[in-house]
Amino acid sequence: MNARPAAIVTVGSELVEGLRVDTNTAHIALRLGRHGFAVTEAVSVGDDVGVCSAVLRRLAADHELVIVTGGLGPTHDDITREAASSALGLPLVTDAEIVEILRPFLARHAESDARDQIFTQALVLEGAEVIPATTGTAPGQVVATPGGTLALLPGPPSEMAPMLDVVLERFDTRRAAPRDLGVVGLPESDVQFAAQRALAAFDGVAFTVLARPGDVRALLIDDGAGPDVLDAAAIAVAAEIGDACYSQAGETLAETVLRLARDTATTIAVAESCTGGMVAAALTDIPGSSEVFLGGVVSYSNAAKVALLGVDAGVLAEQGAVSTEVAEQMAIGARTRFGADVAVGITGVAGPGGGTAEKPVGLVIFGVATANGVKTRTTQAVGTPSRAALRARSTATALDLVRRELLKA
Amino acid sequence: MNARPAAIVTVGSELVEGLRVDTNTAHIALRLGRHGFAVTEAVSVGDDVGVCSAVLRRLAADHELVIVTGGLGPTHDDITREAASSALGLPLVTDAEIVEILRPFLARHAESDARDQIFTQALVLEGAEVIPATTGTAPGQVVATPGGTLALLPGPPSEMAPMLDVVLERFDTRRAAPRDLGVVGLPESDVQFAAQRALAAFDGVAFTVLARPGDVRALLIDDGAGPDVLDAAAIAVAAEIGDACYSQAGETLAETVLRLARDTATTIAVAESCTGGMVAAALTDIPGSSEVFLGGVVSYSNAAKVALLGVDAGVLAEQGAVSTEVAEQMAIGARTRFGADVAVGITGVAGPGGGTAEKPVGLVIFGVATANGVKTRTTQAVGTPSRAALRARSTATALDLVRRELLKA
Repeated sequence: MNARPAAIVTVGSELVEGLRVDTNTAHIALRLGRHGFAVTEAVSVGDDVGVCSAVLRRLAADHELVIVTGGLGPTHDDITREAASSALGLPLVTDAEIVEILRPFLARHAESDARDQIFTQALVLEGAEVIPATTGTAPGQVVATPGGTLALLPGPPSEMAPMLDVVLERFDTRRAAPRDLGVVGLPESDVQFAAQRALAAFDGVAFTVLARPGDVRALLIDDGAGPDVLDAAAIAVAAEIGDACYSQAGETLAETVLRLARDTATTIAVAESCTGGMVAAALTDIPGSSEVFLGGVVSYSNAAKVALLGVDAGVLAEQGAVSTEVAEQMAIGARTRFGADVAVGITGVAGPGGGTAEKPVGLVIFGVATANGVKTRTTQAVGTPSRAALRARSTATALDLVRRELLKA
Repeated sequence: MNARPAAIVTVGSELVEGLRVDTNTAHIALRLGRHGFAVTEAVSVGDDVGVCSAVLRRLAADHELVIVTGGLGPTHDDITREAASSALGLPLVTDAEIVEILRPFLARHAESDARDQIFTQALVLEGAEVIPATTGTAPGQVVATPGGTLALLPGPPSEMAPMLDVVLERFDTRRAAPRDLGVVGLPESDVQFAAQRALAAFDGVAFTVLARPGDVRALLIDDGAGPDVLDAAAIAVAAEIGDACYSQAGETLAETVLRLARDTATTIAVAESCTGGMVAAALTDIPGSSEVFLGGVVSYSNAAKVALLGVDAGVLAEQGAVSTEVAEQMAIGARTRFGADVAVGITGVAGPGGGTAEKPVGLVIFGVATANGVKTRTTQAVGTPSRAALRARSTATALDLVRRELLKA
């Protein structure tokens, strides 16, 4: 399969001044891949007509598709229309339909300066097709170039994304959507090797592993295989990874936990110390979580562990807050007080301070209570992960322990 | 002040395939600005020697500084060294010191293939200065070009950032660090207008407003003003914004709340329904939060509101979970049960389901309990914000209500 060369240009001084991270490029590139385009260059430029025009001229000459985002608003900084006009040698003409759409916005602006500015949004490249705005006011436009197609889209992602879909409708779909596998509790390299082994038996499937603390995803990309082979490859990779692979369908770990809980009519509660509310926040992030998630206690102080979860004050004093006994009692306390089927307790030393020789930063102890009793798991981070990374990883471990209980239910 | 032209090149197929969002460009661009560089182009390319080499040749010709990240690892995909060598016409030579640094890593890899690959990391452009890796194994390098300087840095942000600082040490600092103001509870446009009004009296200060749900930041950028004028401008903008501006020093809202609580020896507890743990998670994200944050209850079910917070079951039945009475009782319950000085309760309809004509999606009610009693605040989102945006905004409002109590303490 020969890839068609494409390029992406993002316009805006905030991008080249470091004031905003460009997320449009990744979104557009992923979508282009499905239509058989390969992006050779993605360029960000500031609000400079000369620079932007030179970049567009160069890229339009040898790319079948050039997608440009940003710089289509009504202000003097919005230079994309003018730059494209100069680059392609196409005059800008006023589009009567866009003028009608913009007219209601004029009422708010009495000064003629502002009125003139608003009407710059009605300027389109001669021969261009207009893509109406569904959100926002700036319309997009698509025009034929000697080498292919050039599209101008607005910069805000929520305005850009639906218009991109409209632009791409004119190109056939050549690749299936990527298959997105979620993995918990394995290092990135293990997932990498497992995918490599499993995919040796498949042609036309590329893959990449994306890792953040507590969240590893394997993306299988259609490189000619087609949807059926891609499905078979996903099943093979999931089997090779084993039960650490919780989803082949792009679910987050919290989504998987809630789905399993709903399917088995199992209610959940949590008792958090070092994760400080992150497990509850991850679960309640999902709409409908209230069906099975009853609630949680963030017991940061020892007094709260006693008063709200019924942890034994003597055990706390003897064993310390980070101990298997306290993790067990936190889980049991949450299960009892919320009347839940499954409860998880998390206690640990998130750092950077608070570590001792016996209980160093990175020690986290989990308790899981069910009708069958309570068990614990102790983890010790290798190296010196950041507080944020340690908390994220502990959140994932806690959700994974609940998931494994739900798989038995 | 004449800006010196600079360019950024990020190398990696994952960037142009849309599998990873490039955050290096924004980080580098912001740092370059302080040294008087203006980035005219930021380009992402895949792991393609020909494309990368052509881009580097073009940019090195007319930019005083070109920063390249990525593609410096030991695998066949790591093409940046070769591309730079071809672009600049400089041969690659083996650096004996890097060989010594890499030697320990050889022990793990018996196969000669892997050994050869590891040693590709010891190849440097002839005449380049090596920047040793402080994290990771890939060293960076800086080399003089006919037009200025080219630096090759590794792709992982944590490896790249410290090396970038080393590279930039050779250029004088021309601008003060931006002043970073945090604002809560005002729309982006109000902050924009307030900054505009305040900055009319100052020369050489640029600004930008960055908004995410519940978090608006005004960045004041040194455009020739210098640090003293920038400080005065920050004070003027903060005064114009009023008490919605909680920090002029880059603090997050949670950091400000914890600082105020520590300064006034005030303890905090929370009772969360629709924010589901996000307020507790935001506070516990900050190291040392355990000094003043005692804990929280995530009372997602009505039964939990009664059992863990002492909310009156009759009031719940009559008024519903989203009511001023329940918000008050949640705050009072959290304050009493945790023994805290200040407690905030949050109850609302986060959507997308669960709304009624009387209590629509976006209705959120807050209670704040102190020794002086309890008060409430009711907010109704305009339009149809996403669940995530509504939760983020409600988290900010809850933290802001605590902040305003702490300012009185």
